[in-house]
Amino acid sequence: MSESTSTVGPTSASGPVIVLLSGGLDSATVAAIARNQGHDLIALSVRYGQRHACELEAARNVAQALAVREHVWAEIDLRLFGGSALTADIAVPKMGAELGTRSSDAIPITYVPARNTIFLSYALALAEVREASDIYIGVNAVDYSGYPDCRPDFIRAFERMANLATRAAVEGRTLRIHTPLMDLSKTAIIRTGLALGVDYGLTRSCYDPDDRGFACGRCESCRFRLAAFAELGMNDPAPYRESAE
Amino acid sequence: MSESTSTVGPTSASGPVIVLLSGGLDSATVAAIARNQGHDLIALSVRYGQRHACELEAARNVAQALAVREHVWAEIDLRLFGGSALTADIAVPKMGAELGTRSSDAIPITYVPARNTIFLSYALALAEVREASDIYIGVNAVDYSGYPDCRPDFIRAFERMANLATRAAVEGRTLRIHTPLMDLSKTAIIRTGLALGVDYGLTRSCYDPDDRGFACGRCESCRFRLAAFAELGMNDPAPYRESAE
Repeated sequence: MSESTSTVGPTSASGPVIVLLSGGLDSATVAAIARNQGHDLIALSVRYGQRHACELEAARNVAQALAVREHVWAEIDLRLFGGSALTADIAVPKMGAELGTRSSDAIPITYVPARNTIFLSYALALAEVREASDIYIGVNAVDYSGYPDCRPDFIRAFERMANLATRAAVEGRTLRIHTPLMDLSKTAIIRTGLALGVDYGLTRSCYDPDDRGFACGRCESCRFRLAAFAELGMNDPAPYRESAE
Repeated sequence: MSESTSTVGPTSASGPVIVLLSGGLDSATVAAIARNQGHDLIALSVRYGQRHACELEAARNVAQALAVREHVWAEIDLRLFGGSALTADIAVPKMGAELGTRSSDAIPITYVPARNTIFLSYALALAEVREASDIYIGVNAVDYSGYPDCRPDFIRAFERMANLATRAAVEGRTLRIHTPLMDLSKTAIIRTGLALGVDYGLTRSCYDPDDRGFACGRCESCRFRLAAFAELGMNDPAPYRESAE
């Protein structure tokens, strides 16, 4: 756990914090970290026309397990903009040629245009009206270096912009965006969450689940997740189609 | 027209540009400026739970008058966040004590949390999928200095963030946010628009219109607008309740 110690230690708590909660493995871990730091949590989940509605159910379950103070749902229609396998009618790439040739610098087809910019903008609005100064988001530059809006320089630029955007900023309340997973491997993320009691059986990460919410086991997100649990010598407690069929 | 000449002169056109179009006086002028520069326009209008639905009709009429190439509608529910007279059930301040004592640094009650941050984030997503490099927005620091997200430093910070946020930015297509009205008085804005043929009778600015879309003539937005037309020795062609009753 050496690489994640700094994100787990308790700090002084003051007022609620906003946590972007997708129902995936990463955001569940971030929420557990924030709670362990002594914060009251306001979870913000976004319905955005993604095909995997089971993520929404997962967000509900994770929020409940973490006893959040409030769970706010925002509905936005990214399908309006098209252009992504997660929101448009384009096949999700599976293990094989498309994924196999992806370099770490390439941007995957599952990228949603300006997604984190939009999500963080909603979190900023919510932080302002709830008088919160802290936003937690589960972005990660290790496995997702291909997503520009998961990188540290993007997050710092958003934070600078946010501190010029709101009444709160003008009145001197500095907004901070916390990314405790930024430099962690998927294995380190899971190890951190397990130490904090996260039930990963409640979380969903698959880009292409079936109607029951069972994961495909083959998309990029499933592969990262399965490899990390394997490295820890554990079975992923979330349901997969292969084991069920 | 000396103070607005630089915003009206034609420049070389290349590809479509995104224009945030509310149906108000300012955004109609911005759209006319962008069109006059030779650009193809993609108008982006946002329904956001504001009470003045006549603005939406105005946006439709202005877009049609300007022969935009595409008019995209985004629906977001800012009521989720409460905290503003424009979206929550709080009375709109009228001429008199509340407005009379407002200093130029105070933030009006009509401020919507993180509104321009959210609108620009949508514009950024649309720009990316339409391969546009330019976003036009009618923010103005003269009459609206009380709104932090109408100020130049906010706009520049958003632009810096946006250029780290998207696939397009990573691939080297620089995004620019244009604010041709930033330093213009309301009178100069109207003069600019009239020179470009804007029909201000189609636009709506009132914070508290009636069911027919007739303006109150007394809110801050109406007062700025009426004073500017008066300074030009003109009648505002938009409908007002007083003149109709």
